[in-house]
Amino acid sequence: MTNKKEITAGIIIIGNEVLSGRTKDINTSTLAKWLNSLGIEVKEARVIPDLESIIIETVNNLRKKFDYIFTTGGIGPTHDDITAKSISKAFKKKYMYNKEAYEILLKYYGKKEFNDSRKKMAKMPEDAKLIYNPSSAAPGFMIKNIICLPGVPLILQSMLHNLKKYLKKGSKIFSLSISTQTVESKIANNLEKIQNKYKKIVEIGSYPFFRLGKIGVSVVLRSEKKSKLQSCHKEIIKMLTKKKLRILKGI
Amino acid sequence: MTNKKEITAGIIIIGNEVLSGRTKDINTSTLAKWLNSLGIEVKEARVIPDLESIIIETVNNLRKKFDYIFTTGGIGPTHDDITAKSISKAFKKKYMYNKEAYEILLKYYGKKEFNDSRKKMAKMPEDAKLIYNPSSAAPGFMIKNIICLPGVPLILQSMLHNLKKYLKKGSKIFSLSISTQTVESKIANNLEKIQNKYKKIVEIGSYPFFRLGKIGVSVVLRSEKKSKLQSCHKEIIKMLTKKKLRILKGI
Repeated sequence: MTNKKEITAGIIIIGNEVLSGRTKDINTSTLAKWLNSLGIEVKEARVIPDLESIIIETVNNLRKKFDYIFTTGGIGPTHDDITAKSISKAFKKKYMYNKEAYEILLKYYGKKEFNDSRKKMAKMPEDAKLIYNPSSAAPGFMIKNIICLPGVPLILQSMLHNLKKYLKKGSKIFSLSISTQTVESKIANNLEKIQNKYKKIVEIGSYPFFRLGKIGVSVVLRSEKKSKLQSCHKEIIKMLTKKKLRILKGI
Repeated sequence: MTNKKEITAGIIIIGNEVLSGRTKDINTSTLAKWLNSLGIEVKEARVIPDLESIIIETVNNLRKKFDYIFTTGGIGPTHDDITAKSISKAFKKKYMYNKEAYEILLKYYGKKEFNDSRKKMAKMPEDAKLIYNPSSAAPGFMIKNIICLPGVPLILQSMLHNLKKYLKKGSKIFSLSISTQTVESKIANNLEKIQNKYKKIVEIGSYPFFRLGKIGVSVVLRSEKKSKLQSCHKEIIKMLTKKKLRILKGI
């Protein structure tokens, strides 16, 4: 989609547990949906290991390509949590205690329980802005166009609200979808004709599915132009009806 | 982990539906687990859009870094299925009908129903090797170190068996895990000491969780050396027991 006000984002999932297949990443989907609702388009997502050199290289590569980069994971108290330190190095910033974060954590744990591992969660690049964490106190942070969030999905989700104020909003992208009981190869030719007609205005995606014992195709339309989206949607429904294909509701 | 016989892989998930957040990717996890069982380590995964220039750039970049690259998505019959054509361009190979794939599809659909969209699924880079598809006939393919698979998880899963023979196997990586009812910051310091002792032999990851109303930490150990893995595992259990932390079973 061409858009003068396009605002873009990249996502970096930091975690060996995703690369080993042990954990299924759901943060990409959470972030992408939320960013979409703000008119920010996710252009790429990467999963990388907990390795300092790779975190630095990936961050430095992607931060030039997109307006915002979101990282998830690696900001906890254990030895494998190396995101904050690596990001400091990527920006050649001092890795140091953030005074406010330190106070928040001290208050949360109490002086007696505030051990070194917990203190570590207050360390981040100099001049980072805090992203408050209503679930478990330890804040995320933003430095330039990089936003660092935790890997635990429920905690990440609870922090999005506090992050909103730091982001520029883009044009809203509207979306409509149609599910039909057919196979892709029966409608591919007609869909292509409709896509060509709406080139660069409506993006049409086609996704086969097997669900609840049914075989079908979901056709997903996305556009910044609501009226064009609606007329494209109508043309697809007309095409499917002409082919006597059943349109599925509630899928 | 250092390993002379290390065999590495990268995964490229091709699909706007994952970047928009509409679809949660599960193919990374499926592939990673399966590759792990063959001793092949996944070093990076990327999600990229259905855009020819980006597919070409990503494939050409990653294929030099890892032994194998797996792509998923974009090999179906619709206009947004552009993986086979893009991979042909990345390798400067002719994008053409594969005779065997054409025969398989012709037999599957029958002459009358074998329309242009379906024929498209027989097109791939010249000299590609087929990966048979027991679910829906349309084969995947392998060209040099790139393996192209479909995006629909159930179809992808059904094809892995037919792909195994093309891959070199690496050293098996053993894994053990311990779940305990605590928070990371209570054990971080001790875990770090154990990790330092087993540096480059056992990789220790620490993952907080909230599950079934319980807060806990999963400690995951991975190593090629079974005996070292077991002794490291014992040390962690001893440390947790000393701290009077409850070890959770069956999580």
